[in-house]
Amino acid sequence: MKNTILFLITFILSVHLAFSQSGRPRELGIEIGIFQPGKFNAITDVPGVTVGHKTLMLGDSVRTGVTAIIPHPGNLFQEKLPAAIYVGNGFGKLAGYTQVRELGNIETPIILTNTLSVPTAVDAVIGYTLRQPGNAQVQSVNAVVGETNDGFLNDIRGRHVSRADVLGAIKSAASGPVEEGNTGAGTGTICFGFKGGIGTSSRVLPESLGGYSIGVLVQTNFGGILTINGVPVGKELGRYPYRNQIEESADGSCMMVVITDAPLSDRNLERLAKRAMLGLARTGGVASNGSGDYVIAVSTAAENRIPYSPESTTFNRVELLNDYMTPLFTATIEATEEAIINSLFAAESLSGRDGHRIEAIPKAEILEIMKAYGRIK
Amino acid sequence: MKNTILFLITFILSVHLAFSQSGRPRELGIEIGIFQPGKFNAITDVPGVTVGHKTLMLGDSVRTGVTAIIPHPGNLFQEKLPAAIYVGNGFGKLAGYTQVRELGNIETPIILTNTLSVPTAVDAVIGYTLRQPGNAQVQSVNAVVGETNDGFLNDIRGRHVSRADVLGAIKSAASGPVEEGNTGAGTGTICFGFKGGIGTSSRVLPESLGGYSIGVLVQTNFGGILTINGVPVGKELGRYPYRNQIEESADGSCMMVVITDAPLSDRNLERLAKRAMLGLARTGGVASNGSGDYVIAVSTAAENRIPYSPESTTFNRVELLNDYMTPLFTATIEATEEAIINSLFAAESLSGRDGHRIEAIPKAEILEIMKAYGRIK
Amino acid sequence: MKNTILFLITFILSVHLAFSQSGRPRELGIEIGIFQPGKFNAITDVPGVTVGHKTLMLGDSVRTGVTAIIPHPGNLFQEKLPAAIYVGNGFGKLAGYTQVRELGNIETPIILTNTLSVPTAVDAVIGYTLRQPGNAQVQSVNAVVGETNDGFLNDIRGRHVSRADVLGAIKSAASGPVEEGNTGAGTGTICFGFKGGIGTSSRVLPESLGGYSIGVLVQTNFGGILTINGVPVGKELGRYPYRNQIEESADGSCMMVVITDAPLSDRNLERLAKRAMLGLARTGGVASNGSGDYVIAVSTAAENRIPYSPESTTFNRVELLNDYMTPLFTATIEATEEAIINSLFAAESLSGRDGHRIEAIPKAEILEIMKAYGRIK
Amino acid sequence: MKNTILFLITFILSVHLAFSQSGRPRELGIEIGIFQPGKFNAITDVPGVTVGHKTLMLGDSVRTGVTAIIPHPGNLFQEKLPAAIYVGNGFGKLAGYTQVRELGNIETPIILTNTLSVPTAVDAVIGYTLRQPGNAQVQSVNAVVGETNDGFLNDIRGRHVSRADVLGAIKSAASGPVEEGNTGAGTGTICFGFKGGIGTSSRVLPESLGGYSIGVLVQTNFGGILTINGVPVGKELGRYPYRNQIEESADGSCMMVVITDAPLSDRNLERLAKRAMLGLARTGGVASNGSGDYVIAVSTAAENRIPYSPESTTFNRVELLNDYMTPLFTATIEATEEAIINSLFAAESLSGRDGHRIEAIPKAEILEIMKAYGRIK
Repeated sequence: MKNTILFLITFILSVHLAFSQSGRPRELGIEIGIFQPGKFNAITDVPGVTVGHKTLMLGDSVRTGVTAIIPHPGNLFQEKLPAAIYVGNGFGKLAGYTQVRELGNIETPIILTNTLSVPTAVDAVIGYTLRQPGNAQVQSVNAVVGETNDGFLNDIRGRHVSRADVLGAIKSAASGPVEEGNTGAGTGTICFGFKGGIGTSSRVLPESLGGYSIGVLVQTNFGGILTINGVPVGKELGRYPYRNQIEESADGSCMMVVITDAPLSDRNLERLAKRAMLGLARTGGVASNGSGDYVIAVSTAAENRIPYSPESTTFNRVELLNDYMTPLFTATIEATEEAIINSLFAAESLSGRDGHRIEAIPKAEILEIMKAYGRIK
Repeated sequence: MKNTILFLITFILSVHLAFSQSGRPRELGIEIGIFQPGKFNAITDVPGVTVGHKTLMLGDSVRTGVTAIIPHPGNLFQEKLPAAIYVGNGFGKLAGYTQVRELGNIETPIILTNTLSVPTAVDAVIGYTLRQPGNAQVQSVNAVVGETNDGFLNDIRGRHVSRADVLGAIKSAASGPVEEGNTGAGTGTICFGFKGGIGTSSRVLPESLGGYSIGVLVQTNFGGILTINGVPVGKELGRYPYRNQIEESADGSCMMVVITDAPLSDRNLERLAKRAMLGLARTGGVASNGSGDYVIAVSTAAENRIPYSPESTTFNRVELLNDYMTPLFTATIEATEEAIINSLFAAESLSGRDGHRIEAIPKAEILEIMKAYGRIK
Repeated sequence: MKNTILFLITFILSVHLAFSQSGRPRELGIEIGIFQPGKFNAITDVPGVTVGHKTLMLGDSVRTGVTAIIPHPGNLFQEKLPAAIYVGNGFGKLAGYTQVRELGNIETPIILTNTLSVPTAVDAVIGYTLRQPGNAQVQSVNAVVGETNDGFLNDIRGRHVSRADVLGAIKSAASGPVEEGNTGAGTGTICFGFKGGIGTSSRVLPESLGGYSIGVLVQTNFGGILTINGVPVGKELGRYPYRNQIEESADGSCMMVVITDAPLSDRNLERLAKRAMLGLARTGGVASNGSGDYVIAVSTAAENRIPYSPESTTFNRVELLNDYMTPLFTATIEATEEAIINSLFAAESLSGRDGHRIEAIPKAEILEIMKAYGRIK
Repeated sequence: MKNTILFLITFILSVHLAFSQSGRPRELGIEIGIFQPGKFNAITDVPGVTVGHKTLMLGDSVRTGVTAIIPHPGNLFQEKLPAAIYVGNGFGKLAGYTQVRELGNIETPIILTNTLSVPTAVDAVIGYTLRQPGNAQVQSVNAVVGETNDGFLNDIRGRHVSRADVLGAIKSAASGPVEEGNTGAGTGTICFGFKGGIGTSSRVLPESLGGYSIGVLVQTNFGGILTINGVPVGKELGRYPYRNQIEESADGSCMMVVITDAPLSDRNLERLAKRAMLGLARTGGVASNGSGDYVIAVSTAAENRIPYSPESTTFNRVELLNDYMTPLFTATIEATEEAIINSLFAAESLSGRDGHRIEAIPKAEILEIMKAYGRIK
């Protein structure tokens, strides 16, 4: 009975989400890249991946939240996954970098939140892991938590995210369509001067190229000269840094999560992660001095799960050879570019702290520009 | 008298070059980015920088050469410059990386050539440095030599570049306009399936943003989906990898050299170098598995030259603060993108080894596409 | 009046500490290296550096704490210092790595604690920084927090360190002698199978080599084959891993903090940090798989403080040339080796969680061994 | 018949070598570490590994050579091996670093020579690889060549090593005992102020710890305070830098090659390589500013050979889990320490360029010191 109700709620939310997503760029004719997205055009197209959000919109000035990305449904600490993190620009407070680099794996859900709430999120993930069945003896947990700074709209100094909020995001994680825009860790973010947020996209390679799925989820909070599928939208709108030849902020960060079911080593995951920055570049991002641009890449290939309590000193892994990485690189670039653009189309205008207000991108105007540039009909 | 003749020859060559360059993309209406180029729209817009080429076109199958970039006109070994090298993708044979990383400086001209001629070029640069006046006691030289693989058009296994060719490129280095296309190290390269080569571009920041010059020179030999100022030219031409859903080579490499007169530390030069990859991304490059994409960045600020025989144990350097790097990042991205496109517009169709032939980009057709996409009039 | 009392207390504590330290290895005749220590043979020999501890010994099972190292007495966020972090082995949860690497500076006190209390310490340091006078507009803080795992003696899963404990350690920071052994972050640590803890040492270079001070503070919690000034003490005591040819834990971590008043760039600080691992090697450490061995290096040279609100886009820094680094490298190796040995001599036997007990090193026996090996008289 | 003669010569040489090696430190009672060496106490104890030297001692001033280490007897380009290179200190000209880092493998023999002959060696290895049966289509070769600077004894500016010399070293590579001291790339090197050279050592883990073999070969040319198995020999001899409180050279480099048959990923090989620096530290090395300290690590596990022309897009590899790396780390540290000491005991006094002369270590005196320090009987 409970399950039935839960199913109904999930179903209704999915339908609602699918409906509310009818305005995603791809449906408006903006087709980025040469490969095709998966069913949901979301990171959840990679089998087993779930995403949950906890949104905090309180009073005049709390505009923040948490997004959790869970790479597989089991006990991640007991069955770790090959992983890598690439630092595009390291003006950021991401937690967990050095251990992922050293050991080549990830052992917790991936959490995104605001800059000053990283320690709260790390603490929550530690608690979550310690309490998981089977982890009673665990004394060391490497939580991977990323962030961007939503301090313009959000009272970030108030550090309003609680451990319960983080656990809420983890608990609500689901497969299927992913809510985008002003949600979870994207609630208060700003991108190219417009309202940013969470965005996601995916690609599925043709069988002849391996048939692998690649999903990307982004938290967009960065600057530059907005470019949509090659069209210089920021310039056309007269909204870009330095147009008056003065120092203006192109600052801000982008957190990117790339998950694939291709059986990649941690080394090749690092290479894959690096390509997400090339996708960011195509949207006009410049990885400004003040940006914390990080890419977390994970491979979910079931045969490569790394046991915490192994039965043998060695294990057999399947590994895609270097020579076959290029289609995955291409797909990652495309999905990252599209995820960023998706975040902008989904985000809505928002007021927050001290009466600050950030407008959503002017969609109608942008579509006109896209037409003028021959990009949509 | 000799000087007068030399001057005349240089003058005539410059005029010729300026004339032959009348078809550069910017003059055709393709204006990339928001900042303005310097006088020559070349790496030589950074004061003191000179470039020389040695082109080898012999018989049916030698299609290669050498390009030398000299950051300042003095004795580089005695007066080193802050430098950094960023590895976009390391399937390449660049020489000199680890010492530049450790010591933060460069002590020789930068040489570009083909993959299998790197050792010859290193050897030539060592000899050149040992023989420079003042270097009689020198026993250790860190030559920085980059390469791309021109083996489709060139008999690369024949290793036809000689030490004399390398010295020839160094000796011929000059300020002013830089020859682009099938010249020097770009003689036999291929880019996006078309003839690639040497390209260069520059930006000069407004005085209000520091007034610094940034110059970029590239040796283009890589793949992806050709994109010119945001227009999907490769797709329109039906020339891009995976269009038939089969594994096709998007392989190849891009060497990038970034020089600025901004007073940057080696750390900030590494960050600057990283941004060149974002420029490459905007041309459709994917940094394929087989690519050796390296960016060499050098600061020529006179006050920061590092003496080989210092008079004191410390020195005073001027350093641009992190906070003011973003305009330089933006300029580097733009100049790299434009340098790559410049290389394609300058390169001419070429036949070589085993009857292989690579066509230049179809300029007229491309300009039509650019018009259809509202990018030029 | 209050100041007088404070002074008296500090004075009494210093005398007490100096007295209780009469058994430091150097006073017992164990002279490590060729350079001389500073006045206190402590990290506080570097002018301006202060250290504070908060020790948590509660009931049967809380055996942990916090150590704060404060590089200069001013507002660190407003006047940052050049810094670097080297990862000897990255199985650890140190916070702050990527931003220090990107920007080359540190902006908070350095905190050491236990593995699972890192987020609490980060949160406390953020709060501390937000509240500092002059930081009312600050929205982004990169706290540097290191850790080792004291879970054998301490109920680490209980996460008993509070934000108040962290602030307490910062508040109590003082110059002069530094308490070693079972104190602060060293309260519950284990080293070479014996009780480890906090240790510190310093070197002052002769004027002819620059006259610089270098101080090291360590939190020792690692394994290997204990070697004291070259003497194979672990072997002689029959206490070392693999002696029964079975897999035994040589695991554990070492946090190392190196501070100098030499005017070093962040690049040369990274190189300096790297040398601390060579000091660890000389004590018999192997940087086991499970170790989080990190070295944080900071230069306090007053002329190189990096302003948060600069008056100009550039600044003038004084930099020691690469060529004069070797004496500093040597001094760092020596001070690290001695700091580790100091931690062992200061630590006392301790019981903790689940009745676990770790003995202090058997000092008398060890001194006999040192004599037999001709190392002391 | 030819084979018989060849066998006899090899046999005689082996006997001679075994005889001449009777004075290796271990036979003199200097037992470093806790694990046991293999049969030859040499890198060749790892099955399939061969080593060859070409020594150049000509006239008064040519004192140099080439050493080749060949990880497996097949075609290395066609069957690559997992590999990593760690940079201890990067003031060196090692070739091949970035590609090994990117692709995680090695495809040529490893060559050691002098600093200014690196390009000649790279060129020779390229030629060797191009000419190998089966490589007729190869157009890209990543030669791994290391070096140290023998310019005090050798006329290094004369660049006397020829491609034929490099090929000679490769051709002469053999299994069994390895010649140490003034041979091959160690002909003209200096270590701790004494004559250095080639040294090698190995460890075989007990079956209970995996039973793997680890071999190390070093080219010693570095400084510091000579320490033999913990005994401060350099201090006792009054031969160490800074003893007169003036800047003296502790400079110079150490090339280290570590090969194991343990099935390690390239990531774990990088970690293994890092430990060799800890072995160097135990001999008194400080990794001075001017040193080029590099460690090349290779795994020969047959099941992990990486095919150049794979039959599938994926391959199955066996990988030792992170958790079982520590015994290998320990063994690498020990074998590196012993290989360095071996190089010093094997090297003989030598005169060279400009009448320069470097003495061998005073063995008798050192043995007396070792006795006084209770290290040998």
